[in-house]
Amino acid sequence: MKTVYAVGLGPGSLALLTPEAREVIGHCDTIAGYKTYLEQIPELLAGKRIIANGMRQEVDRCRAALEAAGDGAEVAVISSGDAGIYGMAGLLLELAESEEFRGIEIRVVPGITAASAAAALVGAPLMCDFCVISLSDLLADRTVILRRVRAAAENDFVTALYNPGSTKRRDLLEFTVETFRKAGGDELPVAVVHDIARPGERFSIGKISEFPFEEINMTTIVIIGCSRTVVRNGRMYTLRGYQEKYGGFRQ
Amino acid sequence: MKTVYAVGLGPGSLALLTPEAREVIGHCDTIAGYKTYLEQIPELLAGKRIIANGMRQEVDRCRAALEAAGDGAEVAVISSGDAGIYGMAGLLLELAESEEFRGIEIRVVPGITAASAAAALVGAPLMCDFCVISLSDLLADRTVILRRVRAAAENDFVTALYNPGSTKRRDLLEFTVETFRKAGGDELPVAVVHDIARPGERFSIGKISEFPFEEINMTTIVIIGCSRTVVRNGRMYTLRGYQEKYGGFRQ
Repeated sequence: MKTVYAVGLGPGSLALLTPEAREVIGHCDTIAGYKTYLEQIPELLAGKRIIANGMRQEVDRCRAALEAAGDGAEVAVISSGDAGIYGMAGLLLELAESEEFRGIEIRVVPGITAASAAAALVGAPLMCDFCVISLSDLLADRTVILRRVRAAAENDFVTALYNPGSTKRRDLLEFTVETFRKAGGDELPVAVVHDIARPGERFSIGKISEFPFEEINMTTIVIIGCSRTVVRNGRMYTLRGYQEKYGGFRQ
Repeated sequence: MKTVYAVGLGPGSLALLTPEAREVIGHCDTIAGYKTYLEQIPELLAGKRIIANGMRQEVDRCRAALEAAGDGAEVAVISSGDAGIYGMAGLLLELAESEEFRGIEIRVVPGITAASAAAALVGAPLMCDFCVISLSDLLADRTVILRRVRAAAENDFVTALYNPGSTKRRDLLEFTVETFRKAGGDELPVAVVHDIARPGERFSIGKISEFPFEEINMTTIVIIGCSRTVVRNGRMYTLRGYQEKYGGFRQ
């Protein structure tokens, strides 16, 4: 059967690329992806046909990948992080339903999503229940984003924000920070992680009342804690309840 | 500096173990973990000291790991999936604060969490905003779980359920399914994934009104869709909005 693979590269470093993803990229002869992500894996692309283009050209890129598969190529469409979390897997599945691509199967290869890697870097804020919300309103309805942000804040979810803001879009982030501050208080811990698993990786941990808006850009992941999230010795993590349950381990 | 590594193995298959996790396990001389997870990686354990014990002995296991590190061992504490998502990272960070373990650093190595791998297997249900909720009330307050379930259902989040039920605990799952059915309707898509990335891996996709309660056990991940989640050609995925935004690709 003709197959297009939707492959998650992980957040950047090859140290987080799974053997499965590497194997799939290795046996494909055609690799499609946003050029910034292709540049992360030059050593895996030697001798392959490349379908590259820029942002907001996802539909064209995925169509080209499906067409190549229709012509007999073995094709991988790569995404940063997990192909199934704000990646190309969904669009490929949707396009593959159309009559012209009937008979091409989409197989999704998962990857480490940015929230996992960012959480590991700062400590373990995602230890308990959490939400993942993208603040990009390019494809999503703003009223739905606002409603989900409110629900996450008011129900004490740890929340990872993808696409928190750009130079043009700052208002959704301001709303989000203010909503969490009102629900969780000024001391609610927040981690801001830049360029996770890429050159220049860095992070800061602070209080939501001192949120560093000026630092946020398109390669930032924000993790907002919940009432059980603590910051100690420079690490941010969420208490799961072992102490209350089993007690006695901190004399 | 003395370090204990909290390492995520991914959901089961070595094909999803990252090179970073493999490298860390390779250079450590002592590996601690729940015995079921140690059995996933026998080829990585040759010649190593093993600290193994059963479930609900997490505190003892992590204490033993920290003590071994204090004595000069290089120690990895392994978790299934991501060490920072319902794994051992948080407990290690908490224990490491106590006076006796001061000076031991905890480094978290992320892994593919079960929700990512389960989503990839069934299609791409986590394409947009989502929640991850554990229905285990062993460490968490039931009222908090119920409140978060309600918030997720009523605000149209795709939701991945960890520890959905055991032979003894079924009521929280019944509440959850009923809450999502009321909020999202009888047709809301649900995927039930068993033993993801392990021998016996299998899944089913259906409607929430026909939820297969009798199939649920401790190795099941449940993914409940949102209003934009579709089931087509046997795959479940969430529409992100490309069609509305860019149009014209399905003639």
